[in-house]
Formats: sequence, C-alpha cells, structure tokens
Amino acid sequence: MSTPQQETTILVGKKPTTSYVIATVMSFNAGAKKVILKARGGGAIARAVSTAVMIRDRFLPNQVRISDIKLLTDKVTGQGGKERSVAAIEIVLERV
Amino acid sequence: MSTPQQETTILVGKKPTTSYVIATVMSFNAGAKKVILKARGGGAIARAVSTAVMIRDRFLPNQVRISDIKLLTDKVTGQGGKERSVAAIEIVLERV
Repeated sequence: MSTPQQETTILVGKKPTTSYVIATVMSFNAGAKKVILKARGGGAIARAVSTAVMIRDRFLPNQVRISDIKLLTDKVTGQGGKERSVAAIEIVLERV
Repeated sequence: MSTPQQETTILVGKKPTTSYVIATVMSFNAGAKKVILKARGGGAIARAVSTAVMIRDRFLPNQVRISDIKLLTDKVTGQGGKERSVAAIEIVLERV
C-alpha cells in the first residue's frame, strides 16, 4: 500500500527559482496537501518568496494559499569555526 | 500639539541592511507602535527579512514582534514599456 506524502519540505538554495517552482508544482500534483519552502540567507530567501508568489498567483491560482510564514535567525558555523547569524524563512503553501 | 506618528512605513531598497535597522529602531524610539517594512525584488526582500529578524532577535528583543507578513506580486513597467511581475514583501513589526 502506498500512502501519499501529505507534506513536503523543499530546501531552497542556489538553483534558479524555476527549479523550485517546478518541484513545488510536482509535489502538489503528487498529492501533497502542504509544501514547506525553507531558505537561509539573502539570495535563497528571495527565491523562496518568488517561488511562493509564482505558485499562488500564476501556477496554481485559487488552488494554493500561503498559510504561514516564519522568519528565523539561524546560527551558522562558518570557516574557522566562527559562529554567525543568518536570516531564514519558512513559507507554508497549502491546498485550499 | 504634536501627535506622535503611530505607524511608520520604511521602504527597503538598495542601502545596506544596517541602514534599515537603524531607521526601524529610531522609528520605535520616536514612539511608533508599528513599523512596516516594504520591499520589492530579490535583494530588497532579503534585506527586509534580515532587518526584521535583527530587530526582533537582537536590537529590540522582547519589545517588538513580527505581527504580519504579506507576500505580493507587483506589476512593474520596465524599460521599453514591457510589464513584468516582481515579488514583494510587507513585514509588520509591532511593539509588544
């Protein structure tokens, strides 16, 4: 028996925004009720926001809503072992 | 009679993040109950998110919370009159 995955998490990184848009659409089409976009650091945060609005307004309009957004500070240990803070975002997209 | 401004809107653009952090702290210190950070486009969105978490977690901890976040698509008319969509964010910071 296969149980469709209800919730998918997509880590948004350095690929072009369209990669994450496609991954999100595929997750919803595969039966996900919820897709969580997680991103850390400037460029990735911008891509996560772009992905979310493109999905909601263009690719799955009236089918998906943004149900939650969290802004976080993550601690990252950089080269040389020095700890620094980096902004992060979690955007929850949900089937309406 | 001077009435303190209850709500301030800060447009986040191309300056370094610290500029917006300072502007936000000054607004709260001047008596604002609410500061709204608005940003459009990749880099500015990242700076708005960084500003918000730095204020909440580092500069005014336990004094300010993020009470609302909106993700939007704005239409922008570029060079040559061609219209394109650009992601935008509005982050509401509020005194607790």
